[in-house]
Amino acid sequence: MKQFRICSFVLLAFVAFQSIANADHHKYHKVLISSSNSARVKKWELNGRDVTPDCPTNWSITKTTLHGGKQEGVEVITVKNGKLEFAVSPTRGMGVLYVTQGDVRLGWDSPVKEIVHPRHINLESRGGLGWLEGFNEWMCRCGLESNGGPGLDKFINNVGDEAEMQLTLHGKIANIPASEVEVIVDKKAPYRIRIRGRVDEKMFYGPKLELQTEISTVPGSNTFQIADELTNVGASEQEYEMLYHANYGKGLLEGGSTFEAAIKHIAPINATAAKAIGTYNVYKAPTLGFIEEVFLIHPYGDDHNRTTIMLQNKAKDRAVSMSWSLDEIPYLTVWKNTAAMKDGYVTGLEPGTNFPNHRSIERKFGRVPKLKGGEKVRMAIDFAIHVGGKEVQALSGDIKSIQGDRKTTVQKEPTKVD
Amino acid sequence: MKQFRICSFVLLAFVAFQSIANADHHKYHKVLISSSNSARVKKWELNGRDVTPDCPTNWSITKTTLHGGKQEGVEVITVKNGKLEFAVSPTRGMGVLYVTQGDVRLGWDSPVKEIVHPRHINLESRGGLGWLEGFNEWMCRCGLESNGGPGLDKFINNVGDEAEMQLTLHGKIANIPASEVEVIVDKKAPYRIRIRGRVDEKMFYGPKLELQTEISTVPGSNTFQIADELTNVGASEQEYEMLYHANYGKGLLEGGSTFEAAIKHIAPINATAAKAIGTYNVYKAPTLGFIEEVFLIHPYGDDHNRTTIMLQNKAKDRAVSMSWSLDEIPYLTVWKNTAAMKDGYVTGLEPGTNFPNHRSIERKFGRVPKLKGGEKVRMAIDFAIHVGGKEVQALSGDIKSIQGDRKTTVQKEPTKVD
Amino acid sequence: MKQFRICSFVLLAFVAFQSIANADHHKYHKVLISSSNSARVKKWELNGRDVTPDCPTNWSITKTTLHGGKQEGVEVITVKNGKLEFAVSPTRGMGVLYVTQGDVRLGWDSPVKEIVHPRHINLESRGGLGWLEGFNEWMCRCGLESNGGPGLDKFINNVGDEAEMQLTLHGKIANIPASEVEVIVDKKAPYRIRIRGRVDEKMFYGPKLELQTEISTVPGSNTFQIADELTNVGASEQEYEMLYHANYGKGLLEGGSTFEAAIKHIAPINATAAKAIGTYNVYKAPTLGFIEEVFLIHPYGDDHNRTTIMLQNKAKDRAVSMSWSLDEIPYLTVWKNTAAMKDGYVTGLEPGTNFPNHRSIERKFGRVPKLKGGEKVRMAIDFAIHVGGKEVQALSGDIKSIQGDRKTTVQKEPTKVD
Repeated sequence: MKQFRICSFVLLAFVAFQSIANADHHKYHKVLISSSNSARVKKWELNGRDVTPDCPTNWSITKTTLHGGKQEGVEVITVKNGKLEFAVSPTRGMGVLYVTQGDVRLGWDSPVKEIVHPRHINLESRGGLGWLEGFNEWMCRCGLESNGGPGLDKFINNVGDEAEMQLTLHGKIANIPASEVEVIVDKKAPYRIRIRGRVDEKMFYGPKLELQTEISTVPGSNTFQIADELTNVGASEQEYEMLYHANYGKGLLEGGSTFEAAIKHIAPINATAAKAIGTYNVYKAPTLGFIEEVFLIHPYGDDHNRTTIMLQNKAKDRAVSMSWSLDEIPYLTVWKNTAAMKDGYVTGLEPGTNFPNHRSIERKFGRVPKLKGGEKVRMAIDFAIHVGGKEVQALSGDIKSIQGDRKTTVQKEPTKVD
Repeated sequence: MKQFRICSFVLLAFVAFQSIANADHHKYHKVLISSSNSARVKKWELNGRDVTPDCPTNWSITKTTLHGGKQEGVEVITVKNGKLEFAVSPTRGMGVLYVTQGDVRLGWDSPVKEIVHPRHINLESRGGLGWLEGFNEWMCRCGLESNGGPGLDKFINNVGDEAEMQLTLHGKIANIPASEVEVIVDKKAPYRIRIRGRVDEKMFYGPKLELQTEISTVPGSNTFQIADELTNVGASEQEYEMLYHANYGKGLLEGGSTFEAAIKHIAPINATAAKAIGTYNVYKAPTLGFIEEVFLIHPYGDDHNRTTIMLQNKAKDRAVSMSWSLDEIPYLTVWKNTAAMKDGYVTGLEPGTNFPNHRSIERKFGRVPKLKGGEKVRMAIDFAIHVGGKEVQALSGDIKSIQGDRKTTVQKEPTKVD
Repeated sequence: MKQFRICSFVLLAFVAFQSIANADHHKYHKVLISSSNSARVKKWELNGRDVTPDCPTNWSITKTTLHGGKQEGVEVITVKNGKLEFAVSPTRGMGVLYVTQGDVRLGWDSPVKEIVHPRHINLESRGGLGWLEGFNEWMCRCGLESNGGPGLDKFINNVGDEAEMQLTLHGKIANIPASEVEVIVDKKAPYRIRIRGRVDEKMFYGPKLELQTEISTVPGSNTFQIADELTNVGASEQEYEMLYHANYGKGLLEGGSTFEAAIKHIAPINATAAKAIGTYNVYKAPTLGFIEEVFLIHPYGDDHNRTTIMLQNKAKDRAVSMSWSLDEIPYLTVWKNTAAMKDGYVTGLEPGTNFPNHRSIERKFGRVPKLKGGEKVRMAIDFAIHVGGKEVQALSGDIKSIQGDRKTTVQKEPTKVD
C-alpha cells in the first residue's frame, strides 16, 4: 500500500509541476469544476484587488451552490465587473441567468422561478416539450444535435439502419452540466475576465460534440462577449444546430419597445406570425392570451459580414445590442411572446446556425451544417448595454448604416415546408 | 466590491428586521427549505420542552436526509405529538410516509422499500406507469394538471395549436420536491404543530399551479389534519385534478376488514370491479393474483355537507376515520388491491376532485374543475385513529347518522365512457 | 422526548451487540452503503496490512465519490489485490469500470468519458437507446426485466389487462444505484476480498427482482470472479433476462486479435453479421464507419457443463479468459464493433440467459426464463488475465479440449424471427 501512496505523491507532484510550468504567468487561472480530475469547488470567491491590484475598477467573482426545491445542488457563478453583473450556471449548460447594469436588466420573469437542476427535467415529456419546465435564463443555448420544435426525425441507429427518434424542443445542451469549468483573468490591462465551461453532448452510437463556451468581460465596461467553440470529437461526420436563445422581458421590453436590425429578408414562421408581419419590429404591452409570433430573418452584414441588432425601450433611452459575424452565425429568429406578465412576457432575439423549425425542415432547406471528424467551428456574439438617448440613437445609426440603401424583402406568407 | 458587501449587509439587516417585525410572537417559526432564499437545513431537531414549556405533552420534530440506493438525498420530517407519529417527505411532494399510534399504523408494505428520489423516477416509462416505481407512501397526492390513468390527451401547445401529450399515471405532484418548507408551532394551547410545504407544478406554456400543503396536529391527540391551498398563479384559466391517495395495509387491513361511508351512489370502474360490487365494503385476506377493484362513490354529507368514512379491522376495535367537506372534495374512490403481501396488500381510500379515470373521461363528465388566473381553492381532510370497540362503534354510528334513511344507489355495471 | 432518546440508545446498543454476536470472526466486514439503515460512507480506505497482517501480498480498497459534469455524486470502489486492480460503481448498478494488470487492461475507450450518474440518463430517449449515453464500463449487466433491443412488448398492467410498453435498450439494471453495499474480507488464507452490492429492480405492479452481486479476488492472483444471485422477492412468477456485457478495446483488441470458444452453434443476428460470419473469430483494426456485427453462440461445455472462452491479442501473448457453467448461463453473444477509435473500438463477449434480441423474439424461442415467487438463481463467471505466449497457448489448449472433436455448426443466414 505504501508504495502506492508514494507513487501517487510523486505523480501528483509531477502534475503540479507541469501545471506550473505550463501556466501563463500573465493569467490568473482557477479550475472550479473538472470531471477529468474529479474536482468541484462548492463555494468560492475572488476579489479583483487580489489578482489585478493595478486595475482601476474593482471586480469580483463568486461561485455558489443553490438549495431548495428543484434547484438543490445547482451551481452558479456570478461576475461583477464593476459596472455590469452576470450569472452563469454550469449545471444548466453554462446558460447565462441574467445580466444587469444599473436599472437595465437582460432577462425576463419566467413562471419558472427556480434554476432547475437537469435531473428534474424530462425532455421527452409533454410530447417533447419538457424543456419548458426549466426555461428561465436570459440566454440559453439550443442544440447541439438539434434544436427547434419537437417531433420524429430519422437517424441511423446502432445496427446501421435508418430509425426514427423523437427530437425534443431545443435539444439537450441547456440541460447538460458542464464537465470542465475554469476562471481565467488577464493580469495585464484591460484585465479581461473569462468564465469558460466545456459542455459535452456525447454518446456511443450518436453525436460526439464538445462545446467550449466562454463568456468574458473587461472590468468597468458595459460590454461582454460570448465566444464558443464547437468540436466534433468523433471520427464520423456529424450534423449540428445551434441557437442562442437570448430573452428579454420587463426592463427593456414594454408596449412600444422596438427591435432594429439590418434585414435582407424576413418571413413569418406560421399563419399566426403572418398576420402580424406588418408590425414585426414593434412590441405590445402584456396581453392575456397572446399567441407567440416568430419571424425568420436573413440579416445583412457590413464589409466584414458582421451584423448588429438592438432592442430598445419605448423611450429609446435604454437598449441592448448584439453583434456577430454572419459567417459564423448566418440566421436570426425573433420570438415575440408578449403574453400576460404572469404567463411570461418576453421576446427572444436568437442568432443561430438555423431557424427553429423542426430539423427535418431545416435539413431540407440546407440549414443543418455538418462537422467532419475532428473539425471545429467558432461562434461569438458581442453584447452591449446602452444607456441614454444619445447612445441609443448612435447605435440605431450604426444598424441603419449596415442596412444602407439595401432593400428588405418582407415575405407575407409562411414558407411552404411540406 | 466593498460597497456591494455593505449593500448586502444593510439589505439583510432590513429583511431580518422585517421578518421579526412581521413575526407572530405567539408562534414558533422555522424555515427548513427555501428555494427563494437558497436555504436548506440538512439535519435539525426541535423539542417541545424548548418551545412550549407549558404544554403537558412532550413532542418533537426531526428533519433528516436519507442515504443509500434510490433514496440518497431524500429529506424527511418526522413529527411525534406524544401520542401519534408521522413522517413527511418534502422531496416527494410533501407526501406522508406513515402515521403510527401504538399498534395502529396508517400505511402499507409496498414492494418499493426506499423513499425514492424523484430523479430516479421517469413518469413516462412503462407506457406512463413510471409513477409506480416510487409508490409506497401512506398518503400521496395525485395531480395537479391531471391524475388517473395514463394515455394521450389534448392540450394547447406553444403555437396555440391543439396537440397531444401523454398523461402519466397520477400526474407529477408526488415527484416534485417542495420549494418552501417551514415548521410553525402555536406557543399557546392547544399548541398546534404545523408542517407546511409549497410544491410548485409550474412551467412555461403550461400549468402554473402552487400547492401550499399543511399537515398539523395537536400534542397528545389522536387526530391530525391535512389542509391544502391550491392557487393558479398564472394569468390564464387552468384545469386541475387532485386526489388524496391514502393507503392502508397490514395493521388495519386484513381479511374481514370493512369500509363504511355514507353513500349516495357507488359504481364499479370496470368489469373486474363490477363482479365484486356486491362486497365492495368487505376486504379479502391477501390473495395471490388478485386484480385491483376500484369503486367510484358520491358520498352523502351532513347538514354542513361534510362526510366521514372509516376503515376498521375485522375485530372492529381499530379504525381510521377521514372527514371532509364535499364542497371542497366531492368524490371518493375506493381502491381494493388485496394481493399477496409481497406484491402489495393495500386499499386506497381516495377523496378527490375527480375520479381516477383518464382526464379526457373526467372532462366529459364535468369532473375537471378550473381555476381562473389568481384564483385559489382550499381542500382539507381530518384524520383520526380510533382504538377500542366502543370508540370504533361510536364512529360507525356517526357515519350511519350522516346516511340517515337516505338511499344508496348501487350501479351494477361500469358507466359507459366512450 | 427523553424516553425516546433512551429507547433509541438501548435499541442501537442491542443492534450493535447482535451485529457483533452474529459476526463471523473469520471475516472482516464493512458496510459502505445501506438504504435500510440510511447509511453511506463517502470516503473510505482499507489497507490489507491492518486486516490480514499475515497475508504475504499487500492489497487495498478505497471508496470515493466523483465530481464534475454528469458524474457528480457517483460512487466508486477500487480494489488493488497486489497484482490486478479493478473499480466498481455502486451508483451504476455495481458495474465494473475497468480491470488492469500490468499492461493488460480489461475495458475500452468509449466516447462517453464520465461515469454518468443515472439521474442524467433517460432510457426512453432516442427511441429507447438512452442507455448509450452512459455506456463505458468494462462490464455492465443488462436486464433484469429485459435486455436487448428497444421496442414495444406486451405486459400485464395494473387492471389486469394486456398493455404495451416500450422496452428500452438493455434494461434498467446498469442505471440503478445499489441499495446495500459491503466489503467482506476473509481473515484466513487465501484472504479472499469480496465487494458485494444489492441492486433492486422492484416496483409496484411490476417486477420485484433483487440482484445480489459479488465481485471477488484473492490477493496476488491474476483472477477474479463475478458471482450473482437473483431473487424474485415478489409472490408471482416473473420473467427475467440477464446479459453480462463485458467489453474489450485497446489493450487486448487490435487488428488480428482473435476470439476462441468451444462452439456448438453460431449464427449471425442479422444480414450485416451474416456477411462476416466467415471471419467471426478474427478482429479488424479500427475501421471508420464499421457497422456492428453480432454473433449468437451456443457454447459446448466440459463434463461439468462449464465452458471457457478467450480473447487474445495479435501476438498471442496477452489474453483474457472467461469461464462459467452453461447450466447457469447457457448462451454467448459476441459483439464486434471495430469502429474508429474515437467512435468506440470495442468488442463485447457477453454470456447471457438469452440473446440480445428484443424480448418478444427471445420469448418466442423459449429463451426468457422465469422465477417463481421467492425463487432464486445463481450466475457466476470466473475471469483470468493471461500474460506470456505459453500461458496463452495453454489456455487455447483448454478451450480446444472442451470442443474436442465435436462439430461446430455455422449458420450462414440469420434466423427468421417473424
